[in-house]
Amino acid sequence: MADSFDVVVLGGGTGGYSCALRAASLGLKVGLVEKAKVGGTCLHWGCIPTKAFLHAAEVAESAKHGPDIGLDTSFGGVDMPKVLDYKNGIVEANWKGLQATMKARGIETINGRGTLTGPNTLTVETEDGQRDVEATKAMVLATGSTPKVLPITEVDGELIITSDEAMYLEQVPKRVIVLGASAVGVEFATVYHGYGAEEVTIIEALDAVVPREDVDTQKVLARELKKRGIKAITGEKVEDVKKGDGVVTVTTDKGTTVEADLLMVAIGRGPVTADMGMETTGVTLDRDFITVDEYCRTGVTFGDGGVVYAIGDVIPTLGLAHASFMEGMLVAEQIAGEPVTPIDYRGVPKVYYCQPEIGAVGYTEQELKEEGIEYEVAKFPFSHNARAMMQGGAGHVKVLAAKGGGKVLGVHIVGLHATDLIAEGQMIYNWEALPMDVAQFIHAHPTLSEAVGEAHMALAGKALHG
Amino acid sequence: MADSFDVVVLGGGTGGYSCALRAASLGLKVGLVEKAKVGGTCLHWGCIPTKAFLHAAEVAESAKHGPDIGLDTSFGGVDMPKVLDYKNGIVEANWKGLQATMKARGIETINGRGTLTGPNTLTVETEDGQRDVEATKAMVLATGSTPKVLPITEVDGELIITSDEAMYLEQVPKRVIVLGASAVGVEFATVYHGYGAEEVTIIEALDAVVPREDVDTQKVLARELKKRGIKAITGEKVEDVKKGDGVVTVTTDKGTTVEADLLMVAIGRGPVTADMGMETTGVTLDRDFITVDEYCRTGVTFGDGGVVYAIGDVIPTLGLAHASFMEGMLVAEQIAGEPVTPIDYRGVPKVYYCQPEIGAVGYTEQELKEEGIEYEVAKFPFSHNARAMMQGGAGHVKVLAAKGGGKVLGVHIVGLHATDLIAEGQMIYNWEALPMDVAQFIHAHPTLSEAVGEAHMALAGKALHG
Repeated sequence: MADSFDVVVLGGGTGGYSCALRAASLGLKVGLVEKAKVGGTCLHWGCIPTKAFLHAAEVAESAKHGPDIGLDTSFGGVDMPKVLDYKNGIVEANWKGLQATMKARGIETINGRGTLTGPNTLTVETEDGQRDVEATKAMVLATGSTPKVLPITEVDGELIITSDEAMYLEQVPKRVIVLGASAVGVEFATVYHGYGAEEVTIIEALDAVVPREDVDTQKVLARELKKRGIKAITGEKVEDVKKGDGVVTVTTDKGTTVEADLLMVAIGRGPVTADMGMETTGVTLDRDFITVDEYCRTGVTFGDGGVVYAIGDVIPTLGLAHASFMEGMLVAEQIAGEPVTPIDYRGVPKVYYCQPEIGAVGYTEQELKEEGIEYEVAKFPFSHNARAMMQGGAGHVKVLAAKGGGKVLGVHIVGLHATDLIAEGQMIYNWEALPMDVAQFIHAHPTLSEAVGEAHMALAGKALHG
Repeated sequence: MADSFDVVVLGGGTGGYSCALRAASLGLKVGLVEKAKVGGTCLHWGCIPTKAFLHAAEVAESAKHGPDIGLDTSFGGVDMPKVLDYKNGIVEANWKGLQATMKARGIETINGRGTLTGPNTLTVETEDGQRDVEATKAMVLATGSTPKVLPITEVDGELIITSDEAMYLEQVPKRVIVLGASAVGVEFATVYHGYGAEEVTIIEALDAVVPREDVDTQKVLARELKKRGIKAITGEKVEDVKKGDGVVTVTTDKGTTVEADLLMVAIGRGPVTADMGMETTGVTLDRDFITVDEYCRTGVTFGDGGVVYAIGDVIPTLGLAHASFMEGMLVAEQIAGEPVTPIDYRGVPKVYYCQPEIGAVGYTEQELKEEGIEYEVAKFPFSHNARAMMQGGAGHVKVLAAKGGGKVLGVHIVGLHATDLIAEGQMIYNWEALPMDVAQFIHAHPTLSEAVGEAHMALAGKALHG
């Protein structure tokens, strides 16, 4: 006989576990099936370990620049096994914490590979044998994603890697090519540069680095990468990859040839829907993604009001851990009969831990133009912000607002601590604030956040230092 | 004949210059009298140079800890003259920027010592001789403050200094005593520790470090100071200071004796109102502060509707640069006939650049208790925040809200980048948001700001990771 739960979640990544946690808090009996480790990509191969790597890169860069301001500091290189220990320690601690939270909320985690046998049933290959599991109220598909690879290359884990293999790399390449200039690409370029790689080259098929970001963010990042000696080739597609003796050579459609000791492929992630009985559920797949409506419903139902949902990287939304948190909570609350509102994905903040950092929410200027929305814009450069000047001062805060004093439509920050500063931008955008609403209060002095204040003050017609 | 302006501002610090800038933007003819340099204490002897010193201290601390995470970084000491060059460069650049902005807005800056000769008149001793200046609409007194000293000590600039002399100190003391554990005190303790001082001792007469902050902030800071080897003696008053050969010895009322190579007095600042003809204006002084109402009016008027205002450190409000920005703008808008609202000083954020940093807005828990306001509290520790864990993870975000789902009454952050994170807290407090208003949106992952989100989610009954 099958073990029965109100809610069965297939996949214990950020989408799956957040859904399980919220559902359990709302009094539902939850079983979560995970083939590897709860926490998924984000915790084990994504957000968390990369940010640990990036913190180490930041410390290295900081030590390199100490002498510029009178400090006898130096950076002599990295001990990668020790950096890996540090990174693993952070992952382990977070993993333990997550397991404890899940246990405390009464979630049953079933470790093993789950194979769907219908819309609300699956079998799990556990260490102790096969186990049948059944959902009575909801089946939540949260099977995640894996890194995409180029059709013309194969990942060998030595000369050619993805972010998965980068987690365990025991040496710093002298010369590295990073394919792709979205978050993973620019972040790993930052890591390798920080750790002392002599040549870091980014190749991006689209016309700009961080191609989904505001045009002025792209310009600043391109300039700052160049200043640091990181080469970014944009608008060129890889046509050929050749491996020699410890060397990999990439040729683009424009004839550019780059040689390196390592090629890291960071061209995006694809959904995981194969070989798990997905076809038995009746959900619709489109380019391997599960199709859902704005409530994360697949359209498949079962029994007496049972619903099949899908969340996280397996659906074609934002592919960000915190977007999947929202999806997980949205679904849990629906199952529990709470009132819910569809997610406004434009209000989900985006962060990039490259140097300088990027934080963004809302429309980009390109999007406003494309959609024909009339807007006003103010940009406050960090070179005019005292706190930023002390630390180099690159970048800006750019605020887009509806024409005529209307609501804030986008906040785009590129510069120091942009990943922290966007928290305020997120609130401003989602609360549909007017520039005047922000301008009436004061930011602390001297802080980086004053640049956010100044941009809004300028839009409200009352610039202070601007 | 006197030069006549709509508005005369006496003192070009943050209060004075912000008033002048805003008044000029609103079309008023403004004359600003400054005896030293526009920018005042904040720019030349306060906020800006100290934060440059603190940035250098942070880089030093970071390099010391690199080996813990696998980096071959080191810190061998500071070259103080070079640190001073760096600090002076930052001050100079900001000063130039400010002068350019003032000029662009058409403000006439009159360099020289001003002596008031009546409510709306003064004479200025300039390099080119004496100049009489007259205001027709408003006289704004913004004469600032200077560091307080102990009655039992004199500042000699060698063994005993205040923050003024600390700006130019050319060596790092081996052993230093810092008197006072408010912002200036804890920040300089952080600087000297970062620069390699072997013994740093803070002595504070009140019962806790950062005595005006939330009780839990005080506890965290006390613990973290101790962890770093900075000794904080609280609840003891200095009774005796003795100078020997290159050594200063401080004895407290509890009999504690501390010996050091430098004593830095950081026991607050007092208003500057003496020897400038203040008595000719008719304003009221109370403990040397100028008395004002909630619109910064002194109660003195002149001519046909002329008003004497006072702003900044010379009035007994918060003594923060950004509070004086608000006061300056409030006064400028009044003079121009714009509608204004009195400042809610509880909504003015406070920041401390010690390690860990502090950011705070609204009521402390002690204040809520004293005022008998019923409240709920949630505290999210940075030790549970992935991004903070990578960097040590000390501290927390504490949110106080009115009982029963009511509005947020206080946000208290102690930890990494608290000075950035409080920007969001400031908006939350000033917009009178409910915890549920904050909890409905998501913070980016993995960011420090998630701790702000989690605390609000907990108060709203929907904790995610908490």
